[in-house]
Amino acid sequence: MNNTEKLSKFRNALSKFVEFDALEWEIFCAHIQFSTLKKKEYFATEGKVCTDMGFIASGGVRYYYLKDGVEITGYFSFEHDFVSSYKSFLTGEPCLNNIQALEETELILISKDNIHALQNHPKLAYKMERFGRLMAEYYICCYEDRVTAFITQTAEERYLDMERTAKALFQKIPQHYIANFLGITPVSLSRIRKRTLLQKA
Amino acid sequence: MNNTEKLSKFRNALSKFVEFDALEWEIFCAHIQFSTLKKKEYFATEGKVCTDMGFIASGGVRYYYLKDGVEITGYFSFEHDFVSSYKSFLTGEPCLNNIQALEETELILISKDNIHALQNHPKLAYKMERFGRLMAEYYICCYEDRVTAFITQTAEERYLDMERTAKALFQKIPQHYIANFLGITPVSLSRIRKRTLLQKA
Repeated sequence: MNNTEKLSKFRNALSKFVEFDALEWEIFCAHIQFSTLKKKEYFATEGKVCTDMGFIASGGVRYYYLKDGVEITGYFSFEHDFVSSYKSFLTGEPCLNNIQALEETELILISKDNIHALQNHPKLAYKMERFGRLMAEYYICCYEDRVTAFITQTAEERYLDMERTAKALFQKIPQHYIANFLGITPVSLSRIRKRTLLQKA
Repeated sequence: MNNTEKLSKFRNALSKFVEFDALEWEIFCAHIQFSTLKKKEYFATEGKVCTDMGFIASGGVRYYYLKDGVEITGYFSFEHDFVSSYKSFLTGEPCLNNIQALEETELILISKDNIHALQNHPKLAYKMERFGRLMAEYYICCYEDRVTAFITQTAEERYLDMERTAKALFQKIPQHYIANFLGITPVSLSRIRKRTLLQKA
């Protein structure tokens, strides 16, 4: 994908939150960078501070924790999503998780320093605060959905929800990562899939 | 507690995010309300839209879900915290959970309409956006901690964390709610407590 296409996708994703006029967009674009992760390369790693917020122009990433040497998958993000280890990015504390590319992933990055620069830019200060608020509120809703799912749903119910809301993406994720994300073995996942297929038949 | 004391606590809690000068504070205070919940009264109920954000001047609340008629405790908030069913408040969708007072709870409320009015007030627009961003970012960090705990910790580890970080509050919450919050029976909780007391002895 060329950079013009990436920027057009990015501007479109941002427009969910705020619209930038031509001059504002020019200033904004002077503060971003293009980057590509190869499959299995890391966007963020445990113990290091995550200093970038990324927009995924193509590809996808997996968020995971390591506990006693075992990977525990926490989340996935794909094309048109934003990616960051948010708490680390916001607080400057080291990451507790890892974010790894599931496949070759094209990104647009904004560093924390550049976000600060834009928040202090006289032409953009108000809009950047508004953008930041709306984006943070959007992610509060995502996190609340995650917490609600953890508290109220079984692995099977979370599987069905995932299949219903993200079918296309779902098919891109290796099965063992989905099982890991749901907190079950690949064998249990395969059993749930068979059962739900039978129920639909 | 009299209203002057409540306002002073509130202004202090807000100052973590932004400082208001005298005129700004006067405008802000024209948009709030005082309210008291009796023990067991509800701040928000499943199926209804939560239209207020509250500041807890005294007391505490429990967030819980109902699944197949069974209560599942999701969270607690106490004095100096904010309280809302955030996703419902932000999106206007009905709440999925209930928020109930654990004891008599004194609140300062701002309605969503009044937050909008303040966000559109020429004197306060920028500061309200900044306040909203910083507060939403703060809650993203809280939610991320919750998700991390769900994914990486056992009930016992979450109990120990809770005891360490919120000891004083911890003693105010009835044991069966703590057990419910940790997803274990009161008997298991009592077993964990005995074990950790022995380890400390």
